Amino acid sequence: MRDILKIGIIGGGRIGRVHAGNLMTRVNGVQVTALADPFANEELESWAAGMNIPRVLKDYREILNDAETDAVLICSPTDTHATITKEAAEAGKHIFCEKPLDQNPELIRETLAAVKKAGVVFQIGFNRRFDHNFRALRNAVQDGSVGDVHTVRITSRDPAPPPAEYVRVSGGLFLDMTIHDFDMARYLTGSEVVKVHAAGAVLVDPAIGREGDIDTAVITLWFANGAIGVIENSRKAVYGYDQRAEVFGSKGCIASANDSPSTAVLQNASGVHSEKPLYFFLERYAESFAEEMRDFRKAVLEGADVPVGPKDALNSVLIALAAKKSLETGAPVDVAQG
Amino acid sequence: MRDILKIGIIGGGRIGRVHAGNLMTRVNGVQVTALADPFANEELESWAAGMNIPRVLKDYREILNDAETDAVLICSPTDTHATITKEAAEAGKHIFCEKPLDQNPELIRETLAAVKKAGVVFQIGFNRRFDHNFRALRNAVQDGSVGDVHTVRITSRDPAPPPAEYVRVSGGLFLDMTIHDFDMARYLTGSEVVKVHAAGAVLVDPAIGREGDIDTAVITLWFANGAIGVIENSRKAVYGYDQRAEVFGSKGCIASANDSPSTAVLQNASGVHSEKPLYFFLERYAESFAEEMRDFRKAVLEGADVPVGPKDALNSVLIALAAKKSLETGAPVDVAQG
Amino acid sequence: MRDILKIGIIGGGRIGRVHAGNLMTRVNGVQVTALADPFANEELESWAAGMNIPRVLKDYREILNDAETDAVLICSPTDTHATITKEAAEAGKHIFCEKPLDQNPELIRETLAAVKKAGVVFQIGFNRRFDHNFRALRNAVQDGSVGDVHTVRITSRDPAPPPAEYVRVSGGLFLDMTIHDFDMARYLTGSEVVKVHAAGAVLVDPAIGREGDIDTAVITLWFANGAIGVIENSRKAVYGYDQRAEVFGSKGCIASANDSPSTAVLQNASGVHSEKPLYFFLERYAESFAEEMRDFRKAVLEGADVPVGPKDALNSVLIALAAKKSLETGAPVDVAQG
Amino acid sequence: MRDILKIGIIGGGRIGRVHAGNLMTRVNGVQVTALADPFANEELESWAAGMNIPRVLKDYREILNDAETDAVLICSPTDTHATITKEAAEAGKHIFCEKPLDQNPELIRETLAAVKKAGVVFQIGFNRRFDHNFRALRNAVQDGSVGDVHTVRITSRDPAPPPAEYVRVSGGLFLDMTIHDFDMARYLTGSEVVKVHAAGAVLVDPAIGREGDIDTAVITLWFANGAIGVIENSRKAVYGYDQRAEVFGSKGCIASANDSPSTAVLQNASGVHSEKPLYFFLERYAESFAEEMRDFRKAVLEGADVPVGPKDALNSVLIALAAKKSLETGAPVDVAQG
Repeated sequence: MRDILKIGIIGGGRIGRVHAGNLMTRVNGVQVTALADPFANEELESWAAGMNIPRVLKDYREILNDAETDAVLICSPTDTHATITKEAAEAGKHIFCEKPLDQNPELIRETLAAVKKAGVVFQIGFNRRFDHNFRALRNAVQDGSVGDVHTVRITSRDPAPPPAEYVRVSGGLFLDMTIHDFDMARYLTGSEVVKVHAAGAVLVDPAIGREGDIDTAVITLWFANGAIGVIENSRKAVYGYDQRAEVFGSKGCIASANDSPSTAVLQNASGVHSEKPLYFFLERYAESFAEEMRDFRKAVLEGADVPVGPKDALNSVLIALAAKKSLETGAPVDVAQG
Repeated sequence: MRDILKIGIIGGGRIGRVHAGNLMTRVNGVQVTALADPFANEELESWAAGMNIPRVLKDYREILNDAETDAVLICSPTDTHATITKEAAEAGKHIFCEKPLDQNPELIRETLAAVKKAGVVFQIGFNRRFDHNFRALRNAVQDGSVGDVHTVRITSRDPAPPPAEYVRVSGGLFLDMTIHDFDMARYLTGSEVVKVHAAGAVLVDPAIGREGDIDTAVITLWFANGAIGVIENSRKAVYGYDQRAEVFGSKGCIASANDSPSTAVLQNASGVHSEKPLYFFLERYAESFAEEMRDFRKAVLEGADVPVGPKDALNSVLIALAAKKSLETGAPVDVAQG
Repeated sequence: MRDILKIGIIGGGRIGRVHAGNLMTRVNGVQVTALADPFANEELESWAAGMNIPRVLKDYREILNDAETDAVLICSPTDTHATITKEAAEAGKHIFCEKPLDQNPELIRETLAAVKKAGVVFQIGFNRRFDHNFRALRNAVQDGSVGDVHTVRITSRDPAPPPAEYVRVSGGLFLDMTIHDFDMARYLTGSEVVKVHAAGAVLVDPAIGREGDIDTAVITLWFANGAIGVIENSRKAVYGYDQRAEVFGSKGCIASANDSPSTAVLQNASGVHSEKPLYFFLERYAESFAEEMRDFRKAVLEGADVPVGPKDALNSVLIALAAKKSLETGAPVDVAQG
Repeated sequence: MRDILKIGIIGGGRIGRVHAGNLMTRVNGVQVTALADPFANEELESWAAGMNIPRVLKDYREILNDAETDAVLICSPTDTHATITKEAAEAGKHIFCEKPLDQNPELIRETLAAVKKAGVVFQIGFNRRFDHNFRALRNAVQDGSVGDVHTVRITSRDPAPPPAEYVRVSGGLFLDMTIHDFDMARYLTGSEVVKVHAAGAVLVDPAIGREGDIDTAVITLWFANGAIGVIENSRKAVYGYDQRAEVFGSKGCIASANDSPSTAVLQNASGVHSEKPLYFFLERYAESFAEEMRDFRKAVLEGADVPVGPKDALNSVLIALAAKKSLETGAPVDVAQG
């Protein structure tokens, strides 16, 4: 366990494959030992073979029992995250777990206690912290370019809404989508969110409303350091994935724009035209997924700080739950009481 | 009263002079008959002479009694707006009144009733509606480019905070500064604000806090058409006057950026640099002040719609008062009950 | 002749009216004494009355003979510029002359000699030097931000080609259109052009070719200080008036973009769209025309340096003639031998 | 030889390693069989082992003789390109050769004849054609968005000049650096360059001048389709690698800007600041190097058109030689006679 981190991947769905692909081709000093998925079939095996992944298993416990494997990526369905995290910790494996760890704060706390007891590394998958644009904002805050933070604004709009069936089991907009923005707000300001007010509406798709959820939201955040924040969400931006932030403070204001496929600008008789933002999160955040793996490796092998750890796994959920309560009651809600 | 509108100006302070200058040099088809100011002195007379303004008076009633004068601009201190408006209406003069008409809704209603009774044109000075950038946004909403409006965002930051003495008598951030943004929100969406939630803080200048006011705010708006809005205010942006808006809807998103003195961009060893936004509202909104005069003339002489009328004078104040109450109570407030 | 400069305008065509309008409304400390045009008719008189211009004359000599008039603007047809300039100089009037003074260097030299002898101020109408964007570039060169200038690039494209009849008498692309860019190249670099190479083509309108002219050009410039420049011209940019420049040097690169009617950007399903550049030179350069008048007044009344003087009137034509010769011969041509 | 292309790499220097890395990690359906370098040492072997390259050889002929290897990448010093290409062709290997094939047109022609005779695929390494920005421009030209091309402009500036020793053997600016831009001009317009005029200067580094070379150039191009082009080169842009192009035509103008590390923009009291362009060609063109390999694989295995073939290898050199002659003679030079 010096230079090469040996990793088993639990879950062969979309995000599991993204990580597998990155580990095989874009991250130095790692080795994938196996991929486990209860629904492993010919298609997955063929895909894994093409990626040179040595073994495909049905039972993730084989990975936990494999003495050669140092760490696991938990990419299974959300409702299994806590259980597998606990088992992995008890098996002495370092853990990278996709977000959220769970939607139940009690279960999160219990699970994180097990992690702590085991003394293993635990990283939660808030990949946007590793995005080049948001990182530039965070750096400007940290290096003092912005001065004291007064306000932060996060614009987060998906290109298209999920189907009603997904919405039904998603936990709702705040736990499913905004949770990334809650984490981003904490990351950009370096301060905890203490209070939340949420306004929401169903403007994109009535089917979402029929599931008791919203698709449009404006959320006000109060931070421990006195700053105020606002998150603007929509489930559908027809022009693509809209992911921006702006931090305003006593010395200046730093803002990021979207990435687009090219810098080409066409001027013609009808106007000045450029390309839409990258449409899909896998394109926009492609590099961030690789970067979070590099940092995970460093945290395990080189003792670097875990970039997104247990506190982040818990607090983002607490804010989301407070937002949910605020939407129900119409009043601001303290996160501590959420 | 065919082609030339004869206008008397009441109040020779900064904004009165801006309007006088525009009427003399940038607006066709108008004539300034006199300028009245109780503190008229040699300096004002000399300034007026340089501008070819024929008469400087101490008593605005002379203007109201002047049969030659068709219309008045009321640029006197805020607490005289309602009284003079009423008197001007009774004298049969068309009225352009600087914002706000008053901070007291009852007095506003009374005054507007007098205006209505007199059958004169009444325009309120929300000049930002005439800004080229915001107008482009409004046009895009009106022509359907944005589709149904889902969210609107207004960023409004002053370059420097006012002195404490000013803050003391200003009515507070919402009535003094945000009132422009409340009107802008109504203008951009074409819909009324029905509910408000305000979060505020003192982050710029403790002296403002000592006056019982705030200098930083994030305000959530609910509109009659179902849209949600957010206004972000600061009394101090070190980089200048920050005046932007973004309207997001079912078919697209339109946003405006700040104006700057030039388009020049310098790239050197330390980065890529361009000019700050125009620093001062008289520069940024210079053209809008002339444009609102042109529209006022059209409304009086050509029977065009009054671009910003009695309802706008009242509703912006009602929203500001609701915001004030929300800040005090911590809960959203219905504008109708504000 | 202390504070107010009394100006007579010779020529009541488009540019004469632009200057008249600016002098009447946007330039302090000037007074228009008369407007002379041999084709003065009812329409011009009515226009002049609306602008409060006191007198409309047929014969410009009345202006030259008017003891009250300090200075003249020569806005008559190009082939009269030299004669009127000479006469005005002999009459002791300060002179602002539209470009070009003439297309014949010998006549220019003679005329300038008369100006010099008379000791009057002579300013030539290269208005683009007063544009906010190009001025920002010039300032960056002068304050050292760019370091030693290595290359300069001017992009200059008209929105639509002139009719063939105009082309026939225009002197050709270089003397008619590029002459502005030749002057701009000298202005931006602060160095004289010593050699020129021109490549040209007829790509926009065959009628222009039939007149023996070109409508598309790429011109290389060699400067006295060792820098190299390039001008790119077209008679027709379908997206509007394209007026940009870039100066590259040892410490950095400064570039200007076009101005547009608003900063609004629309993102929708088909892309990201913003407004075209200002289409017409009177819009794009509106402020520059006023600014050159302010500087002319300063040069006459306050003894300020003439911003664009006799040398500029001559050298721009010499470069244009060298470019013409280069196009004919295919080889670079020294300006001194042009 | 169905799905997997087996490739041997000749040359273990910087560019050889870039390709090796891409083939190992970013290009599907390829396999590196060996890496050959006459100076192979422990360092190279260790690097190759880390990349999972199976064999490191001293003699590239072992690769040519390897029946398992389908294709070679020629990344050896320029003066060996022609010889190795010929040998590889005779050995029946498909060839990807770094640019330039040679600086001698006769030798290029001979070599390409051998390639033709052997019937193997030959691709030349003009990687910039695969860059996302330039590709977007090319697409806009091809899909008719620009209409008939009237002018094309390429701005190409390196971040720092090479050492004098490199310059001495480089063949000069045009063959070493501008050759990429000559190819780009042909790519963007889809037309051949028929005539060239070059202006040059030594403004960056006198040492370059002492080697008989220039470091600054403005080059005019005449195309077979009637369009005119201009290339602006500098060996040193203090702000980084400046790689832009603009194509102007009858229906519009498309232009690309540089890529930068993030979209973050900081506004503060001193201005508005963003990040410099990506500094180094390996960063800016990282993706283009992978993309050209993907296309090479497709050309060999799937019979796709070779994206940059023999004609491109020859013509770029012919233009460079014509430019060289133009710089010497001061006159435009026909490429056919270059």
